[in-house]
Amino acid sequence: MTENGLGHRERVLNVDTMNPNVKRIEYAVRGPIVQRAVQIEKELKEGVKKPFTEVIKANIGDAHAMGQKPITFFRQVIALCVYPDLLEDDKFPEDAKNRAWRILQACGGGSLGAYSASSGIEVIRQDVAKYIEKRDSGIPSNPDDIYLSTGASDAIVTMLKLLTSGEGKTRTGVMISIPQYPLYSAALAELAAVQISYYLDEDKCWSLDVSELRRAVKAAREHCNPRALCIINPGNPTGQVQNRQCIEDVIRFAAEEHLFLMADEVYQDNLASFHSTSKCYMGECGFRGGYMEVINMDPEVKLQLTKLVSVQLCPSITGQALLDLVVNPPQPDEPSYATFIKERTANLHILSEKAKMTEQVLNTIPGIHCNPVQGAMYTFPRLTLPEKAINAAKEQEQAPDMFYCMKLLEEMGICLVPGSGFGQRDGTYHFRMTILPATEKLKIVLEKIREFHKRFTEEFS
Amino acid sequence: MTENGLGHRERVLNVDTMNPNVKRIEYAVRGPIVQRAVQIEKELKEGVKKPFTEVIKANIGDAHAMGQKPITFFRQVIALCVYPDLLEDDKFPEDAKNRAWRILQACGGGSLGAYSASSGIEVIRQDVAKYIEKRDSGIPSNPDDIYLSTGASDAIVTMLKLLTSGEGKTRTGVMISIPQYPLYSAALAELAAVQISYYLDEDKCWSLDVSELRRAVKAAREHCNPRALCIINPGNPTGQVQNRQCIEDVIRFAAEEHLFLMADEVYQDNLASFHSTSKCYMGECGFRGGYMEVINMDPEVKLQLTKLVSVQLCPSITGQALLDLVVNPPQPDEPSYATFIKERTANLHILSEKAKMTEQVLNTIPGIHCNPVQGAMYTFPRLTLPEKAINAAKEQEQAPDMFYCMKLLEEMGICLVPGSGFGQRDGTYHFRMTILPATEKLKIVLEKIREFHKRFTEEFS
Repeated sequence: MTENGLGHRERVLNVDTMNPNVKRIEYAVRGPIVQRAVQIEKELKEGVKKPFTEVIKANIGDAHAMGQKPITFFRQVIALCVYPDLLEDDKFPEDAKNRAWRILQACGGGSLGAYSASSGIEVIRQDVAKYIEKRDSGIPSNPDDIYLSTGASDAIVTMLKLLTSGEGKTRTGVMISIPQYPLYSAALAELAAVQISYYLDEDKCWSLDVSELRRAVKAAREHCNPRALCIINPGNPTGQVQNRQCIEDVIRFAAEEHLFLMADEVYQDNLASFHSTSKCYMGECGFRGGYMEVINMDPEVKLQLTKLVSVQLCPSITGQALLDLVVNPPQPDEPSYATFIKERTANLHILSEKAKMTEQVLNTIPGIHCNPVQGAMYTFPRLTLPEKAINAAKEQEQAPDMFYCMKLLEEMGICLVPGSGFGQRDGTYHFRMTILPATEKLKIVLEKIREFHKRFTEEFS
Repeated sequence: MTENGLGHRERVLNVDTMNPNVKRIEYAVRGPIVQRAVQIEKELKEGVKKPFTEVIKANIGDAHAMGQKPITFFRQVIALCVYPDLLEDDKFPEDAKNRAWRILQACGGGSLGAYSASSGIEVIRQDVAKYIEKRDSGIPSNPDDIYLSTGASDAIVTMLKLLTSGEGKTRTGVMISIPQYPLYSAALAELAAVQISYYLDEDKCWSLDVSELRRAVKAAREHCNPRALCIINPGNPTGQVQNRQCIEDVIRFAAEEHLFLMADEVYQDNLASFHSTSKCYMGECGFRGGYMEVINMDPEVKLQLTKLVSVQLCPSITGQALLDLVVNPPQPDEPSYATFIKERTANLHILSEKAKMTEQVLNTIPGIHCNPVQGAMYTFPRLTLPEKAINAAKEQEQAPDMFYCMKLLEEMGICLVPGSGFGQRDGTYHFRMTILPATEKLKIVLEKIREFHKRFTEEFS
């Protein structure tokens, strides 16, 4: 026991005694910029004068917060499940009622309030398997390989946890792209696993080159045991879609190098594939629904996986139910089909329009280069920053793009995430922005970036 | 790279190469007994003949699965939040609509589908703080100390994670009761932290004696660094409620020994207190709602805690909304108050009746001793097992109470959890059962246990 000068004992838990792996975690998507944005919003509410009247957040893939409307059918079914008295209500279409009834039949005691199996409700896992089979033109999928999860993050961390072992040179290494989504680096830091960075090629629309994977894994074998390869496709934060050739090459590479592949929509010996309710046309982040499909896993390890997920009992049942509707939406012969298709098409159409607009406008700004936004809801444009700005940032012990984004927030009320939070080649600078703000607002965001970038460049020239 | 005899390469991930900490996890509440119960249910469906027609599960605190009905007001508000078109519907009471409106106003874009702050929606954290203040007769609670979570399990694991550091003799040790809820031992195994067991006194209704805490912490200081004390009150699996004197003694002990206290409803320098939507009169396990209040935490560590929870983005918003209703239920001047009180009272009354019945019936069975069921929804009766049964279990490499519970499941279709899954004094045997099955079913469970126990004792005498 120690005492400090004030006669108080030191706290049991302080930064010197806490888990050092947790300290090493960095999570830019909800980091200092976002915390400052929340503060500024409070200041605006309290009447503090700013050069803007609202903060526009383009930092996170949170579609509903940006005004995207929920899909009616999804919400009808969940409301019916939550409050089954509504099953008597004429206002709800028959197919929504049938769907709700089917989900409730699969719940303990017919209630969303019961726990489910830890891997998720069985009929929903069956629906997921059918969805995957249909998507992959009949390649079979087994419901026993499906684990429902709390968003996709939960499942990704679980897989990384299973893979981590060894000490020193035998410590598990995991290959992740740079730029990457910081969930990966955060989970690896927490697990004290080794991050093996491979770089995406910005000059070729963030494509993935197997020779770069080879370089990275070879260098890593000197100091750790590379055991897994993570692929994010469509890319986050970079928004690209890898082509078929690239995906085939990656699968071959993983097989040759004996790596466990963690990916979206990719098939291979020993693989976990992740999906969630948060993105795409539905954007239901708050329900925290997700799944992973785990293929060709060692049966004994699968028992361990099942045990590991059971410690958290089960994912939210509302999230599971919503996921069921995503993988099993209204069919052409059902009354809700027309509305569903209309809403989905509208959401996808707007996203595609905004993707084009974002690329076009950003590329007209001198000093900003933006690759095409092909998939996902993100763009990761490259910034040319003046030497003086880079030095000013260094004086403040900030990454230059953090310095840039913080100034953009303070002066314009636009909240983006600096590229340094995702990783980037040394000497390059980026930000990640989502294309989710409503079209009119996105226009304002883009014009404010133009104005700011010009002023910033002049200020530091 | 290695190849097996079939010319197939070994899998990248196998039990020899997986995370050894995950292998060490044991989680009896969803362990082999429960897996076998699920199998038996399938066999029954397929027409396999058994000495019973259904499996009755008394293994987990899953109230709705056992037939408990949801609280109407809670479900109305959540349905309104999920599908706000219902705000126009006359069938919903005004207070439910007001509550839904208030929650939606606090959500991004007015939708449950948006992410929230990682620590949870601010107005809900304010409601939790008010609830705690009221419960504790005005002792102030700060919304900034509240973290909403995915059930309580999530928050407990997060706190244990923060506390874990060091190697060898400096490795973090955490004191947990025996018997304990296996989430604690599972999380400690995963984190490779040291479990320090202290025993509850079965002869004094599972009470907690500070001299036993002293013995345990002293012994532990020889080989690790004891840093935290976990108290489960009301007890799980043991169902006791510790008295005020005991709680005061524990707080003093934690202060003297410089331990971080993790507890329900206990106050002290450096403390995390947990709650959830899963238990008590509401029993809404599937919504995975929970909170923890963290008091007097080092501000720098709190920043780290906030970062750590942000990696999972946020708890399910439906779970958060439901938690809000638990801490802020209908008030006497509101239209839903009467129904709410009626439903809550009925649920609590039935639980109390079933607690009494369980204790009384079990204590009439020779060879079973059951302490009073004071709180929680569990009982942890002690079994006298014949020597021959103990030997038969050892031959099958099973814990004797696992052997007993597995036979009970196979012969009677009753699913309980063996005491060995929670920890118990050497040479003693227990099972945990919930008192949640409907009264008529609970009677059957108790009579089947009586019949089985008699037969089992005769068989092995």
